Amino acid sequence: MAVITLTTDFGMSGWFAAAMKGVIAGIAPDARVVDVTHEIAGQDILAGAFVLAQCFRNFPRDTVHVAVVDPGVGSPRRAIAVKSQDYFFLAPDNGVLTLALASVDDRAPLQIRSIENERLFNRPVSRTFHGRDIFAPVAAHLAKGIAFQEVGPVIENIVRLETAEPKVNKKGIEGRVMFVDRFGNLVTNIAAHHLEQLPGEPKSFRIGSRWNNVIRKFGRFYAEVPHGKAIAIIGSSNHVELCVNLGNAAQKFRAKPDDKVYVS
Amino acid sequence: MAVITLTTDFGMSGWFAAAMKGVIAGIAPDARVVDVTHEIAGQDILAGAFVLAQCFRNFPRDTVHVAVVDPGVGSPRRAIAVKSQDYFFLAPDNGVLTLALASVDDRAPLQIRSIENERLFNRPVSRTFHGRDIFAPVAAHLAKGIAFQEVGPVIENIVRLETAEPKVNKKGIEGRVMFVDRFGNLVTNIAAHHLEQLPGEPKSFRIGSRWNNVIRKFGRFYAEVPHGKAIAIIGSSNHVELCVNLGNAAQKFRAKPDDKVYVS
Amino acid sequence: MAVITLTTDFGMSGWFAAAMKGVIAGIAPDARVVDVTHEIAGQDILAGAFVLAQCFRNFPRDTVHVAVVDPGVGSPRRAIAVKSQDYFFLAPDNGVLTLALASVDDRAPLQIRSIENERLFNRPVSRTFHGRDIFAPVAAHLAKGIAFQEVGPVIENIVRLETAEPKVNKKGIEGRVMFVDRFGNLVTNIAAHHLEQLPGEPKSFRIGSRWNNVIRKFGRFYAEVPHGKAIAIIGSSNHVELCVNLGNAAQKFRAKPDDKVYVS
Repeated sequence: MAVITLTTDFGMSGWFAAAMKGVIAGIAPDARVVDVTHEIAGQDILAGAFVLAQCFRNFPRDTVHVAVVDPGVGSPRRAIAVKSQDYFFLAPDNGVLTLALASVDDRAPLQIRSIENERLFNRPVSRTFHGRDIFAPVAAHLAKGIAFQEVGPVIENIVRLETAEPKVNKKGIEGRVMFVDRFGNLVTNIAAHHLEQLPGEPKSFRIGSRWNNVIRKFGRFYAEVPHGKAIAIIGSSNHVELCVNLGNAAQKFRAKPDDKVYVS
Repeated sequence: MAVITLTTDFGMSGWFAAAMKGVIAGIAPDARVVDVTHEIAGQDILAGAFVLAQCFRNFPRDTVHVAVVDPGVGSPRRAIAVKSQDYFFLAPDNGVLTLALASVDDRAPLQIRSIENERLFNRPVSRTFHGRDIFAPVAAHLAKGIAFQEVGPVIENIVRLETAEPKVNKKGIEGRVMFVDRFGNLVTNIAAHHLEQLPGEPKSFRIGSRWNNVIRKFGRFYAEVPHGKAIAIIGSSNHVELCVNLGNAAQKFRAKPDDKVYVS
Repeated sequence: MAVITLTTDFGMSGWFAAAMKGVIAGIAPDARVVDVTHEIAGQDILAGAFVLAQCFRNFPRDTVHVAVVDPGVGSPRRAIAVKSQDYFFLAPDNGVLTLALASVDDRAPLQIRSIENERLFNRPVSRTFHGRDIFAPVAAHLAKGIAFQEVGPVIENIVRLETAEPKVNKKGIEGRVMFVDRFGNLVTNIAAHHLEQLPGEPKSFRIGSRWNNVIRKFGRFYAEVPHGKAIAIIGSSNHVELCVNLGNAAQKFRAKPDDKVYVS
């Protein structure tokens, strides 16, 4: 019984995620569908890339991860399927897989194919809803066990986002806020291994350009500082998180996704 | 393993959808429950009717579609069950099934029954939560395979919404905005077959009463027009959608559900 | 095929609920996961306790109910597992189970254990996401059928919220608004059995301190009063609900969670 995950910007007030699940249920009735989220900000490819990358590894082997943040739907952008050592990934070729693919187990090389086998599609294929008509049915067929090469021909190059990696040098790290969680914690693109490239322990974490927007405490969990005080930790997804114990860091620092974060 | 879908206005912050799923799990542990949405605007029967109608066909045969938008719960309004060629539908008798029933496969006549068999209910039946106490358990029993006639007696007439169809004549079509999706696209009640009743290609789509709220481009997908420009397309649910490429038509035209749309 | 329910304050825009489901799918692929809600207000333990208590009984025997509202994650607060006659409950030891445990079937005494068996955990265990690393995998193992004593040693005392019960005397009842549903109905902590302790029928329900914020009609369902008029009923979860027929009681009375409610 394979698992299919869905990461989209469709929201939950319409019928879009349901239409995908209906198509899947018709092809692979035993597949288990898990919503990662449908609340990625509209057409925010980088946000979709980040959210998927934080959780795909928590799923069992052979899970099919589907990411549909797709501002170019209907245009000639390709639809791609990627097979790593443990997982399948399906998405429009716009970079939304960049961060997940950068962190998969690399014992086996990635196999990348262009999704072109129309016999697998939901027909007729609309021009505006490939989530329902291409990605959902292909995911269901993969969950059911068709050979990976059936989805379409091998391709070499896919779109990768360049903005996703922090800049690291001996003086410090320039990263950015990738996600603000429900508690106002600022999850950054600075991973634990980036901190290890610094000559010593990180001393300060500055958010944005205001000189006093600085956190000087680096610890392990929120409650190491008093209520309302700020702390930087390595969060549960192994990235630097900027937090306020029992408070809201996004409010305290007036921070939002895409703000710069400087570690020194 | 039958599928049960849920379309409600319960929201996601309470326990209401979960209570329905708990009751279903107790009766039909193998049934698969799919949320269409629980975010229908409170007591907006027409919105519930529209959302269900856009996706019910994507589900496999024998799916049980449950729609609970139910401002009259507790009053003597009936609970109804409808069997079409391919699907079951359960809902309060207030018109929320109007649009789905208007578009089901009509090779077989609709079978309509009043849900009255109390042996199928979750007891005691509350006066305010028939989703949990009547619709969920009856859906579970149908998913498990009880004969359709067990739900209750045949009835002839059910409530149907009159406002749902656009007015078509040779000069044009008067429809309305039915749904604003997460990207601000305006999904109308004007279907492809309505456009075919016009003497020629549609030339303009006017939204509301302001003379300059007009879209003159009719195409197939968003990216046919430059960024920020408006286009009318036949969307993925086969209805006219008014869109702005990489923009937000609802904001540009200050449009909202129920606004009139004139095609000429 | 056991059921696992999730009640959290993680929200739906991140990967947090999905990460829990991924871990569960890896351990207990046949378990069925049902979201109660992930929209509990951030770190509002009492709200989480209330929502879980309204629906846990609707699930079949042996369901594993997981509640993660956990402001103290990472600190030395315990993680607990409770077995009642019919259910398992997993949560941080902060009172979030108070209301569910107060209303379980008490034919069998509660068995309470501290979750300490690290062999059941998702490793390495993060300091900030025990939902993924402790509660999800232990729930999956219980759903799969491990013996309850495997989770950890018996403990005697767990944290219980004191604020959850209304004050009842012969002159009346002082309770509070626990939950505002999507329609603006005010669900209180005053249960039907509390009203039975009054010397007669309840005559008035006052909300907050303003003298004219009073409902004098006590009935059975919304439509007993005209549109826009207020009524108090015993709602579907057996608690007093303050409602406006086809209207919004929260708006009419400017009421919110935690407001006092006086019955006399």
